Amino acid sequence: MSAPERIRGIFVPNVVPLDQQGAIHEAELRLYVDWMIDHGVHGLYPNGSTSEFTRFTPQERRRIIEIVVDQTAGRVPILAGAAEANVRETLGACEYYAKLGVRAVAIVSPFYYRLSPDNVYAYFKEIGRHTPVDVTLYNIPMFASPIDLPTVQRLAEECPRVVAIKDSSGDLTQMMRFIEAVRPIRPDFSFLCGWDTVLMPMLIIGCDGGTNASAGVVPEITRKLYDLTLAGRIDEARAIQYKLRKFFDLLLMADFPEGVRVALGLRGFRTGAGRQPLSDKHKQTLDQLHKALWDLLTSEGYPCEAPGSCGPEARAGFDPREVGRLAEEVVAALKARGVV
Amino acid sequence: MSAPERIRGIFVPNVVPLDQQGAIHEAELRLYVDWMIDHGVHGLYPNGSTSEFTRFTPQERRRIIEIVVDQTAGRVPILAGAAEANVRETLGACEYYAKLGVRAVAIVSPFYYRLSPDNVYAYFKEIGRHTPVDVTLYNIPMFASPIDLPTVQRLAEECPRVVAIKDSSGDLTQMMRFIEAVRPIRPDFSFLCGWDTVLMPMLIIGCDGGTNASAGVVPEITRKLYDLTLAGRIDEARAIQYKLRKFFDLLLMADFPEGVRVALGLRGFRTGAGRQPLSDKHKQTLDQLHKALWDLLTSEGYPCEAPGSCGPEARAGFDPREVGRLAEEVVAALKARGVV
Amino acid sequence: MSAPERIRGIFVPNVVPLDQQGAIHEAELRLYVDWMIDHGVHGLYPNGSTSEFTRFTPQERRRIIEIVVDQTAGRVPILAGAAEANVRETLGACEYYAKLGVRAVAIVSPFYYRLSPDNVYAYFKEIGRHTPVDVTLYNIPMFASPIDLPTVQRLAEECPRVVAIKDSSGDLTQMMRFIEAVRPIRPDFSFLCGWDTVLMPMLIIGCDGGTNASAGVVPEITRKLYDLTLAGRIDEARAIQYKLRKFFDLLLMADFPEGVRVALGLRGFRTGAGRQPLSDKHKQTLDQLHKALWDLLTSEGYPCEAPGSCGPEARAGFDPREVGRLAEEVVAALKARGVV
Amino acid sequence: MSAPERIRGIFVPNVVPLDQQGAIHEAELRLYVDWMIDHGVHGLYPNGSTSEFTRFTPQERRRIIEIVVDQTAGRVPILAGAAEANVRETLGACEYYAKLGVRAVAIVSPFYYRLSPDNVYAYFKEIGRHTPVDVTLYNIPMFASPIDLPTVQRLAEECPRVVAIKDSSGDLTQMMRFIEAVRPIRPDFSFLCGWDTVLMPMLIIGCDGGTNASAGVVPEITRKLYDLTLAGRIDEARAIQYKLRKFFDLLLMADFPEGVRVALGLRGFRTGAGRQPLSDKHKQTLDQLHKALWDLLTSEGYPCEAPGSCGPEARAGFDPREVGRLAEEVVAALKARGVV
Repeated sequence: MSAPERIRGIFVPNVVPLDQQGAIHEAELRLYVDWMIDHGVHGLYPNGSTSEFTRFTPQERRRIIEIVVDQTAGRVPILAGAAEANVRETLGACEYYAKLGVRAVAIVSPFYYRLSPDNVYAYFKEIGRHTPVDVTLYNIPMFASPIDLPTVQRLAEECPRVVAIKDSSGDLTQMMRFIEAVRPIRPDFSFLCGWDTVLMPMLIIGCDGGTNASAGVVPEITRKLYDLTLAGRIDEARAIQYKLRKFFDLLLMADFPEGVRVALGLRGFRTGAGRQPLSDKHKQTLDQLHKALWDLLTSEGYPCEAPGSCGPEARAGFDPREVGRLAEEVVAALKARGVV
Repeated sequence: MSAPERIRGIFVPNVVPLDQQGAIHEAELRLYVDWMIDHGVHGLYPNGSTSEFTRFTPQERRRIIEIVVDQTAGRVPILAGAAEANVRETLGACEYYAKLGVRAVAIVSPFYYRLSPDNVYAYFKEIGRHTPVDVTLYNIPMFASPIDLPTVQRLAEECPRVVAIKDSSGDLTQMMRFIEAVRPIRPDFSFLCGWDTVLMPMLIIGCDGGTNASAGVVPEITRKLYDLTLAGRIDEARAIQYKLRKFFDLLLMADFPEGVRVALGLRGFRTGAGRQPLSDKHKQTLDQLHKALWDLLTSEGYPCEAPGSCGPEARAGFDPREVGRLAEEVVAALKARGVV
Repeated sequence: MSAPERIRGIFVPNVVPLDQQGAIHEAELRLYVDWMIDHGVHGLYPNGSTSEFTRFTPQERRRIIEIVVDQTAGRVPILAGAAEANVRETLGACEYYAKLGVRAVAIVSPFYYRLSPDNVYAYFKEIGRHTPVDVTLYNIPMFASPIDLPTVQRLAEECPRVVAIKDSSGDLTQMMRFIEAVRPIRPDFSFLCGWDTVLMPMLIIGCDGGTNASAGVVPEITRKLYDLTLAGRIDEARAIQYKLRKFFDLLLMADFPEGVRVALGLRGFRTGAGRQPLSDKHKQTLDQLHKALWDLLTSEGYPCEAPGSCGPEARAGFDPREVGRLAEEVVAALKARGVV
Repeated sequence: MSAPERIRGIFVPNVVPLDQQGAIHEAELRLYVDWMIDHGVHGLYPNGSTSEFTRFTPQERRRIIEIVVDQTAGRVPILAGAAEANVRETLGACEYYAKLGVRAVAIVSPFYYRLSPDNVYAYFKEIGRHTPVDVTLYNIPMFASPIDLPTVQRLAEECPRVVAIKDSSGDLTQMMRFIEAVRPIRPDFSFLCGWDTVLMPMLIIGCDGGTNASAGVVPEITRKLYDLTLAGRIDEARAIQYKLRKFFDLLLMADFPEGVRVALGLRGFRTGAGRQPLSDKHKQTLDQLHKALWDLLTSEGYPCEAPGSCGPEARAGFDPREVGRLAEEVVAALKARGVV
C-alpha cells in the first residue's frame, strides 16, 4: 500500500460573518466559502484563531463546520478546528466532524493554563489514541501552551492519526527541527506554516503549505506566492512575500483578528462586528487600518472599487447575498409564525 | 444611604471533585463545601482557576454554582466565576447566578487572544453596563490578558456594579497603584489577593482579603494568617506566611491546579482525577508531591492520619460520604429503571 | 567568638555628579556624600546601577570609590560595586577596595551573556574563594543573569566571605525562599531589598535593609520608612511606603537612572548630564518628570524652593560647592600651564 | 560618483584563543586568522559576541584588533567590534580602528540598562555624527537593548557613516521590514544575518551576508551555503542549511560562546579555557558537546582525525604553532631578564 497523501497547499482560517444580532450570518458565510474556493485556495480551515473559535459556543462551532462542509460540497478538503473544553468534548467534536467528512481536524494545544511539555504530549496522545479522524497539531505559543520538539516527535512516532502540525510561531529554526525529526519516520506527515510573513521561506525550507489568514482576504496573492515558490521562481516569489508581509503587518495593527474582519469587508463581504467589544481608541485604529488596507488593495489592482461594492457583487448582475438575505427573512418570518 | 459593605476575608477557589467517570461528584462537592465553611473560610469562589473552569462545559459550570449555592444555604457569601465564551454568554451566566443569590460574580479578563488594555476595558465596560449582579475583576496575567491600572481606574469610576478586583499576579507595587487610584473614589471597592505566598504583605498594604487556593486545603492556616495579620500580630503572622509560602510552592510543583487536587485528597476527600491527561513523568511528580505534602501537613499537626481517612470522616462516627455515595447509587439505579 | 554583625539599614546607590565635560565632578560628589550621611542613611553604595557603573572606565570606577571612601572618613560603612570585565579584574577591584577599607563589595551577576544558573554559581564561587573582602551578591534579573535559590544557598554554605544578597527583583516570594534557606545556616547573612516600592513589606518578611535609589534623593523618607517599620508602627509606615511608591514610579518614567539624576538636581545638586545621549522625546519626558517631582517634593515639605537653590546651599551662609568649583578652576588653569 | 560598495559575504566573529594564564594567545590567534582566510571567509569580525568582547579589558580589545589587522594584512576586510563603556570611549575606539584600516566598526546597542528605542537612536546618532569610520549597527535583543525599525530607518536617512546592520535575532519578518524601509533610500546599506540557522532564508529574502559563529569553525560549510544560495541552487543549499542548523544548535547547548570554543579545539586549535568559570555540570555538558561535535564533523568528512591533530597542523610538515610558541617563550625569557 502506498503512503497516504500529505496535506498540502494553502488552507484558509476563515472569518465568520456575523449578522446585526451577532449571530452567525449563514448566507454570507456560504457566499464567502464559494468566493474563497473560486479564488484558488486549496482548502478551508474553519474554527481556527481567525475564526474566533473561543468566542462561539460549542453548538455554534459545530454549526460553523456544518455550514462550511455543506457549502464546500467536496470541492476542497477541510481542516476543522475541534478544540473543546476537555479531551472528552474534543473527541466528541472529532467524531462529529469525521461524520461530516472533513479531511482532518486541527486541535490547538491546551490554553489558559500553561502546561508542561509532557502534559501537552499526554493531552494529544489521549486524543491521538481515540480520534476517528486525522489530527493536525496546532502550535501557537503566543496564545496556548507550546508544543515542543520531543512532543511532536513522539506523537508522530506513536500516533498514525496525527498527520500534521500547523505552526504559527513563525520560527524557522524550530520548523527545521520538526521536519528533520519527523520526515524520515513519517513521510506522510505535513508541516504547515501559520505565519504569513514567512510563508515563502517556510516553503523553501520544506513546509507543505500554510494556514494563512491573508488567504481569506487576498487569496489570489497567497496562492500566487505558493505557486511561484514551488516553481522555484524565487525573485518573483520574494516580491510577493514582501507585499504579503506588509499586508499581514497591517492586519495585526488591531487586536487579532479584528483587522482581518475589516479587510474582508473591503473585499465586499458583510462581515459584521466581531464579538469582542472594542474601545473608541481601537475603533480609530480600525478606521486607519481601513484606509491603509484600502490603499494597499487598490494599488495592487484588487477589485475593491468601494467598500461593499466589490467582492461577490462584482461577479454577477445581481447580488447573490440579497438572495441569501431574502431567504433568511422568509425563514425568520416563518419561524415567527411557528411554521418552522 | 451608607456605602455598601466591601467584600472582605478569605474566599476559596475550590477544587471540583470528580467521580470515576470524570463527572462532577456532587455528593463529595457538598461535603467539601460544608468542610470549608466549618473550617472558617469567609466565602466560596467556585469556577475559579483552581476549579478548572475552562475544562467544564457551560452547563457544568452552571451546575457547579447551583450545587455550591444550594449546599452553602446562605452561611457564607459566594463569588461565582462567570466567564463564558463572549459578553452575551457571560451576561447570561451573570443573570443566572444573580437569581441563585450569589454575592457577586468574578470575571477573568479575556484569554487565548491577548487584548490591548483598551479592549480589556471595553469588555468589562460592556459587562459592567448590563450586569444584574456585582462584578469582581479577575486579573491573572500569566493566563489571561492583563488588566492594567487605567482600566481598573476607569471601571471603578464608571461602573458601580464593578466592586472588586482579584489579583493573582502577586505584584505588590501594582496592587498599591490600584488601591491608591481607586480607594478615594470608591470606598466600597474591594482588593483581593490571589497569590497565597504574599497574602500577609498584601493585607498589610491594604488588601481586604484573598481568594486563595491554599484555603481550600488548609483553611485553618489561611484563616489564621488573615486573623493574625489584621490583629497586627506581625511576628506570628510572618511565621504562618512562611509556612504558607512553602505549602503553596509545593502545590505549584505540578501543573496547576493538579497539586491542589492531590493535596485535598490528603485531607480525606475523594477528589478523583482531573480532566487534563497527565504524563507518566507528571504522575511521578505528583507522587513526590503527595509525600512532601503529607510530611508537611502531618508535621504541622493536621488531622491527616492516612490518605482517605481524615477530613470529613474525622468529624463523625460514620462516613457522611458513604451516605452520599449510597444516595447516588440509589438515584442511579432508579434512573436506570426510568423512575426518575 | 560571637557571630559577625549582619549588614543592616539603608544603603544608597548614589548618582555620580558629572561636570560639563562629562567627567566625575569630585567636589559635588563630596558634597553629596556629606549630605547623604547628614540626612541619616546607614551606608553608601557607590558603583551600583544608579551610579551608572557600566558607563565609567575601570579607572573611573576606582576613582569613584576612592572619593567616596575618603569623604566618608569612616562615618558610615561602604558597599563598593566591584564588578569588572572578568573574574581576575573583579578580584583586582576587590583587593583595591579592601585596602581602602570598605565594609564589603557588591558584585552583580554576569551580564550581557545570560548564563545558566550553575555558571552563575561558578562565577561567584571563584570570587568567593579568593576575595579578600566580604561580598554582597547583587541580583537584578531585568539587567543581568538571575541568581537563583540553589546558587544563593550553595554560596552561603560554602563561602564565608559571601555575606549578603541585594535583590532588585522586588519578588517577595523569592526573598522568603532565600531567607528560609540561608538564615538557619548563616545567621550573619544579610538580605537587602533593592526595589523601593516594596521596601516595607520586604522588611516585614525579614529583610535587614535596603539599597535604595530613593534614599539618594529623599533620604529622610526612606530612613523614616525603615525606622517606622522596624518599630512596628505599621499604619504610619504604610502611609510612607505609598509616598515612596509614587516617588519611585516617577523616577522610573524615564530610562533608569536618568530620573534619579533629575530628582537629585531638584534637591540642589549640580548632577550634570548623564553619559547616555538622550533623544528630544526623552528630554521632554524628563521635563515632565522634573515638574512632577518638584510638585511631589514641595507638597511633602522638602527644602526645594527652586532648582539649584536648595540642598547644600540651604545649609550654610556660603555655597560650599562654589569653593569646590573654584578649586577645580584653579587646578585646570594650572594644568593648562603645565604646572601640575 | 558611483555609490559605495555594500558590505557583502560571510564575516567571522572569531573566538580569541587564550593561553594557560588566560591571556590572549597571540600566536594561535594569528594562525587562526590565516586558517579562516585560507578557508574562504569573506571577512573577519573580531570583538563580537563570540569573541567574548565584554570579558576583555579596553586595552585587550584594542590589542585583539591590532593582531587581527596585522595578520590579515589586507587580504580580507575587517569589521571591528568597537563598543566601549560610553560614547566617548566608543568613539575613541572608532578612531583607533580607523587608523588601523578596518573596513568598518560594529557597535552593539547599549546593554545592561534596557533603553527606550528613542534613546538607542540617540546613542547611535551621536556616534554616527562623529565617527571617522563606517559603522555597522549590531542588534542582538537577547543580550542588548533592541534596535527597532524607526531607529534603523532614521539612522540610515541621517547618517551616511552608518552603512549596515547585523541582526542576531533570527527574525525574518523584522529583517524584511528593515530592508523594505532602508534599501530604497540607501542602496549602499548592508543587511547581515547573525543567526546561522536561518542564514539561507535570510539571504533569499535579501540579506547581503552574515556574521556567523559557525564560519569560525566550519568555514567551508558556511561559505558553501552562501555560494549555493546566491547561485539559486536551492535544493543543495537547503541540505547544507539543515546541517548548519544542527551544528549551530549543538554549539548553543552550552552557555554561549563556550560551545564555539570547544568546537574550534576540535579543528586543531589550542583555544584554551574561556574566562567565565564553568561549573562541573557545565563541564559535563561540554564533554557531551565535544563528542557530538566530533561525530558531526567527522561524519561530514572534516579533517579532524583527533583533537589537536588536525587544523593548521595538517597543512604543513611542521607545526607552525610550535614556531609561535617558541617565539613566545623566547620573548618571555627576554622579558624576564629585562631585555625587552
